[in-house]
Amino acid sequence: MNISDTLSGATRVIGIIGDPIAQVKSPSGVTQRLIDRGCNAVVVPLHVASADLATVVAALGRTKNFDGLIITVPHKLDAYALCATTTERAHFLGGVNVLRRRPDGRWHGDHADGLGFIEAQRSAGCELEGRRVLLAGAGGAGSAIAQAALEAGASLLAIHDGDLPKRDGLIRRLAQRHGERVQAGSADPRGFDVVFNATPAGMRAGDALPVMAEHLDGAMFVGDVITMPAVTPLLEIARSKGCRTQVGAGMFAAVCERMVDFLLETGPLTEARLPTAAPTAR
Amino acid sequence: MNISDTLSGATRVIGIIGDPIAQVKSPSGVTQRLIDRGCNAVVVPLHVASADLATVVAALGRTKNFDGLIITVPHKLDAYALCATTTERAHFLGGVNVLRRRPDGRWHGDHADGLGFIEAQRSAGCELEGRRVLLAGAGGAGSAIAQAALEAGASLLAIHDGDLPKRDGLIRRLAQRHGERVQAGSADPRGFDVVFNATPAGMRAGDALPVMAEHLDGAMFVGDVITMPAVTPLLEIARSKGCRTQVGAGMFAAVCERMVDFLLETGPLTEARLPTAAPTAR
Repeated sequence: MNISDTLSGATRVIGIIGDPIAQVKSPSGVTQRLIDRGCNAVVVPLHVASADLATVVAALGRTKNFDGLIITVPHKLDAYALCATTTERAHFLGGVNVLRRRPDGRWHGDHADGLGFIEAQRSAGCELEGRRVLLAGAGGAGSAIAQAALEAGASLLAIHDGDLPKRDGLIRRLAQRHGERVQAGSADPRGFDVVFNATPAGMRAGDALPVMAEHLDGAMFVGDVITMPAVTPLLEIARSKGCRTQVGAGMFAAVCERMVDFLLETGPLTEARLPTAAPTAR
Repeated sequence: MNISDTLSGATRVIGIIGDPIAQVKSPSGVTQRLIDRGCNAVVVPLHVASADLATVVAALGRTKNFDGLIITVPHKLDAYALCATTTERAHFLGGVNVLRRRPDGRWHGDHADGLGFIEAQRSAGCELEGRRVLLAGAGGAGSAIAQAALEAGASLLAIHDGDLPKRDGLIRRLAQRHGERVQAGSADPRGFDVVFNATPAGMRAGDALPVMAEHLDGAMFVGDVITMPAVTPLLEIARSKGCRTQVGAGMFAAVCERMVDFLLETGPLTEARLPTAAPTAR
């Protein structure tokens, strides 16, 4: 069953808000995931400028069948401020990428990137419990992954970022909860079990590598957030050395799945059942 | 090609606004019509209460890929007041059922019911030019049909409605433009070529007939706005007497087509082409 079978007046609506928006890939995939789980819903792109975000988000909260919002660039931080409540992880990050409409028409937010990234590594065979992790990148994606890696039980998380104030600010905030497990790292992966790239390095031909790839060895696991190219130079080198790896597309898929989990956790979407659907067992 | 093939970040969005909304049938049909005409767009239901209509309509005007709104019960009159501009026929009716976003983010409205109804009769073989028409019902649908019947060249339009002030108010306003061609009618169809029902009579078992069906004769054409039941008691009697007829579903389809015409007349939707679509010849 797909959206051409299910679209009707009873379909619940979820928007994905960004600026620009035409490049986003999630409308069809998240729509299909919702349908596969027996929910009559559709995800549509919404092109909203920063200056209009608060107005549009408030108005959609007053639209009684508009049950969720996915937030993408550049609105993740601004949308956090528009939530009435958020999960603890979103509160830590000060950002959200998925919102669920509350019964009062206000919004409850979550940030799915970190959990999704970690889940994608797990599906590729990388469990973090007790592992030593080097993370390159302390920006939005890096912060989410750092938090999730610590929650997943990494014994050590070393964060590398050329922007030292940004790196140290993130470490300081994580250390309040996780203490000595989080430290400053360098580009040198020696001594780590797992290496993650959460920087843009590798998107463009000629980018410097985010870590010293010559020091990777085949016992390490290497994961990357970048989806274009599908396999970054870092991952190519890692594979050539025998490392297990996970590509950015794996993260994207897992983040979408996590967003659907959040949207379906409670509220009207959970009741928007397709008449003939056999929900996928979870 | 259908919406499951085309939904993406580049899809343009059209809402259908009503309260309630779950019963509306147009999302899938209008979406498919837009796709068949080579336009990458989707129609989604929006459940909006009257108190929130102005807020939501204004916010959607600031959503840069939200190019149109279809307006249904109970918002047709309120939405008229929210338009920056309308077609002349919508202005006459003081109501709109389809809006197109202008370049300034405000809305241009039209009322498609009258044209759609007349087009549906035409497709069933009923040309109005020079014909004598009896119309039952001077409400929203009746007003739209009256105006469109006169524009289509009916030589006489007699309007029957038990609410005499409503009937006479409509006649007075139509007469300002169409003079003697519009008159008060009764429930007696004798002497007319065409009989239209634009009242709710026939939706429920036991309803009185909207006109004196015993005086129908087989040379008359009879059209009805009611979609449920598919064939009203009035149409059943008309058919039994040999009349040609048109059902409400025919009107519904023609109104949807007319809305698509309006949405695609100009503006960003006309540029939202599907890459591989061969637009249907018109």
